[in-house]
Amino acid sequence: MSDKDDKIKVTRRGLLGATATGALVATTPAAWLAAANKARAEAKSSINVKPGELDEYYGFWSGGQSGEVRIIGFPSMRELMRIPVFNRDSATGWGITNESLKILTEGLLPHSKEFLAKRGRVTYDNGDLHHPHMSFTDGTYDGRYLFVNDKANTRVARIRCDVMKVDKIIQIPNAQDIHGMRPQKYPRTGYIFANGEHETPLVNDGKILDEPDKYVNIFTAIDGDKMEVAWQVIVSGNLDNCDADYQGKYAFASSYNSEMGMNLGEMTAAEMDHVVVFNIAEIEKGVKAGDYQMLNGVPVLDGRKGRNKNYTRYIPIPNNPHGVNVAPDKRHVCIAGKLSPTVSVIDVTKVDALFEKNADPRSCVVAEPELGLGPLHTAFDGKGNAFTTLFLDSQVVKWNIDKAIRAYNGEDVDPIISKVDVQYQPGHNHSSMGETLEADGKWLVSLNKFSKDRFLNAGPLKPENDQLIDISSDDMQVVHDGPNFAEPHDAIIVRADIVNPKSLWTRDDKMFADAVAQAKKDGVVLEEDNKIIRDGNKVRVYMTSQAPVFGLEKFEVNQGDEVTVYVTNIDDVDDVTHGFTLSNHSIAMEIAPQATASITFTADMPGVHWYYCQWFCHALHMEMRGRMLVKPA
Amino acid sequence: MSDKDDKIKVTRRGLLGATATGALVATTPAAWLAAANKARAEAKSSINVKPGELDEYYGFWSGGQSGEVRIIGFPSMRELMRIPVFNRDSATGWGITNESLKILTEGLLPHSKEFLAKRGRVTYDNGDLHHPHMSFTDGTYDGRYLFVNDKANTRVARIRCDVMKVDKIIQIPNAQDIHGMRPQKYPRTGYIFANGEHETPLVNDGKILDEPDKYVNIFTAIDGDKMEVAWQVIVSGNLDNCDADYQGKYAFASSYNSEMGMNLGEMTAAEMDHVVVFNIAEIEKGVKAGDYQMLNGVPVLDGRKGRNKNYTRYIPIPNNPHGVNVAPDKRHVCIAGKLSPTVSVIDVTKVDALFEKNADPRSCVVAEPELGLGPLHTAFDGKGNAFTTLFLDSQVVKWNIDKAIRAYNGEDVDPIISKVDVQYQPGHNHSSMGETLEADGKWLVSLNKFSKDRFLNAGPLKPENDQLIDISSDDMQVVHDGPNFAEPHDAIIVRADIVNPKSLWTRDDKMFADAVAQAKKDGVVLEEDNKIIRDGNKVRVYMTSQAPVFGLEKFEVNQGDEVTVYVTNIDDVDDVTHGFTLSNHSIAMEIAPQATASITFTADMPGVHWYYCQWFCHALHMEMRGRMLVKPA
Repeated sequence: MSDKDDKIKVTRRGLLGATATGALVATTPAAWLAAANKARAEAKSSINVKPGELDEYYGFWSGGQSGEVRIIGFPSMRELMRIPVFNRDSATGWGITNESLKILTEGLLPHSKEFLAKRGRVTYDNGDLHHPHMSFTDGTYDGRYLFVNDKANTRVARIRCDVMKVDKIIQIPNAQDIHGMRPQKYPRTGYIFANGEHETPLVNDGKILDEPDKYVNIFTAIDGDKMEVAWQVIVSGNLDNCDADYQGKYAFASSYNSEMGMNLGEMTAAEMDHVVVFNIAEIEKGVKAGDYQMLNGVPVLDGRKGRNKNYTRYIPIPNNPHGVNVAPDKRHVCIAGKLSPTVSVIDVTKVDALFEKNADPRSCVVAEPELGLGPLHTAFDGKGNAFTTLFLDSQVVKWNIDKAIRAYNGEDVDPIISKVDVQYQPGHNHSSMGETLEADGKWLVSLNKFSKDRFLNAGPLKPENDQLIDISSDDMQVVHDGPNFAEPHDAIIVRADIVNPKSLWTRDDKMFADAVAQAKKDGVVLEEDNKIIRDGNKVRVYMTSQAPVFGLEKFEVNQGDEVTVYVTNIDDVDDVTHGFTLSNHSIAMEIAPQATASITFTADMPGVHWYYCQWFCHALHMEMRGRMLVKPA
Repeated sequence: MSDKDDKIKVTRRGLLGATATGALVATTPAAWLAAANKARAEAKSSINVKPGELDEYYGFWSGGQSGEVRIIGFPSMRELMRIPVFNRDSATGWGITNESLKILTEGLLPHSKEFLAKRGRVTYDNGDLHHPHMSFTDGTYDGRYLFVNDKANTRVARIRCDVMKVDKIIQIPNAQDIHGMRPQKYPRTGYIFANGEHETPLVNDGKILDEPDKYVNIFTAIDGDKMEVAWQVIVSGNLDNCDADYQGKYAFASSYNSEMGMNLGEMTAAEMDHVVVFNIAEIEKGVKAGDYQMLNGVPVLDGRKGRNKNYTRYIPIPNNPHGVNVAPDKRHVCIAGKLSPTVSVIDVTKVDALFEKNADPRSCVVAEPELGLGPLHTAFDGKGNAFTTLFLDSQVVKWNIDKAIRAYNGEDVDPIISKVDVQYQPGHNHSSMGETLEADGKWLVSLNKFSKDRFLNAGPLKPENDQLIDISSDDMQVVHDGPNFAEPHDAIIVRADIVNPKSLWTRDDKMFADAVAQAKKDGVVLEEDNKIIRDGNKVRVYMTSQAPVFGLEKFEVNQGDEVTVYVTNIDDVDDVTHGFTLSNHSIAMEIAPQATASITFTADMPGVHWYYCQWFCHALHMEMRGRMLVKPA
């Protein structure tokens, strides 16, 4: 490129960014026109979504140890909504309302319920949400559900995408700490595959303690429709990340600790660890045939090495492998080496032979390109290319799968197309629609663990840095730094037309079916009545909310009464969410338009206590309030 | 402007935004150069902060009923950090760690502690955080503290700006639901003024219930250095928003319910409500003279109408006034009418006469411009202009204070300069440095309650919309739509040089002084030792964390032991925060570099339980784990 040409080079950040310096160096009309045309072309995929314009994608971002899911407008990288999942949420009353507590408690295992009860709790206070993934039909997102894991307290949750709220949470028995989690891609979801990361005695009741050779790890398949565990498989080694293929035949899970080591030295000792391949049909056959033990109500099959079962195969992979990503070519699975600079590529069409002919497990590895230091996760553009994060190099490397295979076969070809620096230490990455057959190759997000000098200093605790990368050409461009609170562990980027939430609740929604049933028993019409039903020392207070008034301006109870307040929002206009907060009572809840929400507490403080609407709803929002009068005992 | 001129008009969003259409219509080099020059000038105040560039301001955003504070990079409007305050936070362990529980519990009033204990709690699960304001010295921000209120459970909290963590939370006695809250501006903070919004019996023990004529409201001054209530004043009517003047003489609080009505009709009955003026020196004299009753350990003075005290004056203001904002001209206080289309302007130099000469309270009102429907809050540019949100009109109106005064004096002059539509229903607004003497007139943010059609649909619960407005010229421009989770109730925008947080904790920080003291008693050096101290059935487990290992790979306890785990992060590198999560135990905490954090629980579940680092710290982060072995009883 000549100096003259260089002068008219207009980068996206130059023209569309802060300084417009790129545009200003053009010195002739022709140069200007060239720059303008380039700008127009580039502008199609700009991150600068103008006021009032809509984003092209929904991003669903893990909230990591914050326990929530975030809905991101993409590519503007703006947070549109938080969905509380494993955390407590002061705003919506998640973990406070009866409706949320039912979801948070009903799927807990007995020993957890018992433990929590001793701490005065009914559910967990925290969660560690790593992997949000949408339900699939025929290899692409279908907009029904999001599934997410909790590494901290061994749970899996489901989010309804019609209302963007959790409807089911289950705790997984026999396993400890669910890490990798992916939905079945084909024919549909179907199963959710969930990796137990940390090995324990299979019956973990204290009889076996410091005897690691008796520990096991558990792979779980959950029925995503019923949100029940379908079956589990005991494996050799531990389990880290996983993915499912596009044939509906196999799931793959990496193991960084095939050694079953208890400390760093032991865990990193072996040069080769492995990926476990699960044969879904064979496992289902085994369940049918009764080849399992029932443990905590779940059939547990034995898929360990040396058991001579067709449930699993173990493919050796270099050194503490981490990310497992199935390419949209329906054929290749990429396993990132972490301590090895390589990504191992498995050809799924060669996996059948492992099960049917006991072929050498490494025979299905068709490439193992050396990409850089600390490869963790791989994303795809749907055009045969892969993008792998290099944690130690703080880079994303773009490479070509086909070239990597040719190189593995001895051809003198470099699979690496380009690298881009990211800031800093990237973990997961994800491309637009990249884990589906509709991968579109437009955008990549690199979820970087450290942000260091990239933002104003926010104190000793720093944000992460989610960087947006334009991958529409081979020359990858970081176009946006996105600071984020702990911890966008993983993310998916979903074309907007796939997701179609409601704007209002419908009155027959099962989220508040219990309230509807109780009201019916009490002869109360939730949408109309403002009534107090006394039933011994139980008091049920039914009221409507319609901006700017609650149906009841006051209600009286006796000290010691168990009070349940049901609020039904009869506004039917977008955005007119109401709240119910009861002063000094640790009580708050969201009631979105056409919803009912309820909350139960004991009226232990005599006196006058105000309730008010905490969701700004009207010019007279401040005046939307009422009194609970508690008569002393 | 001619058609031809129009062709070369380049708006900021046109050139710098998504489509660059503005740039493309220029058809000659001259036109292009004009456009480019305009763009260059405009680009100075662009919101498009490039990757790696730093924002010019810190935004401190209320999290409303989510109970947190958000640090925003401004003007890029990116969330840099969340500070948990009145909420529970799964990621940092706020509400789980011993250090946070001490802060969350020690300032609670006895009746609240008792009530919470009956619910099995030690602190509240929710908060409703409305107003974040920084400490002042000589009329401008001094970077020491942020103060915030909790409307839900009647609390005020302080955030240390050196580490961006809360260090004190107190519950305010005798009042119910702290709403308006502002720090003293001059000579320094000093006092925090806090409005009790909801009227109750002064001794609210149930003896008085449905007798509203016996209810009162309470204005509180908190000593911001000690975080203790200094004094309280009983007022007539209720209290909404407040502000303090630049003389250090007065505080002003609006009352939307001077009627002391219990329902909407009663609360909106009077044509005139009022603003209460508090005379700080006179109140301090009254305290000294013993003119108070002690209630819950606090001196409570009587400032009601008709008490003939010099503590307060009541200035009539039209119809349910809301926002109270003191202009950086040191002289004018703007009270927004809410149900009246007016903003009432008080001249503080005329307030002396109210106290000294019992002048007509309305004599200090020097302007009352009619601005539009639903005026709520006013911000300032430091150039004599004011910006008022119009909730019902969904607009921001720019008007000139001096012109408003001249118009009030009968001159034929229109104080309104311009209006801009916002989307939709604006509540608070705030200008850069606007509530200080250093108001710079660059930016305004309008915190809009409804977002309707402005973002991808996120379900029945919608985000709010924080819109960024360029106020550097009279022609206000909305340049960014910022979706936000419940509820950026209020915000401040602080020049970056004023805020200087640490990047590492120092080992003598008082946040973990209790842990340091306990370790000393146990003969443990926190920064070096990994030890288990047994003390009856109390077990103290001390360990270091240094990427990627905990100092202890395992520890054993007996079922029923009360276990306290102390983790000291001995990494001293920016960003290397560690975490400690104990599987299935509802236990997680953040340990930032050079900090110690601790957590106490009863080991009730026999068996093998893994702990792991949940804050991504190293390539071998997944391997950073250890075992708690619990021997059955």
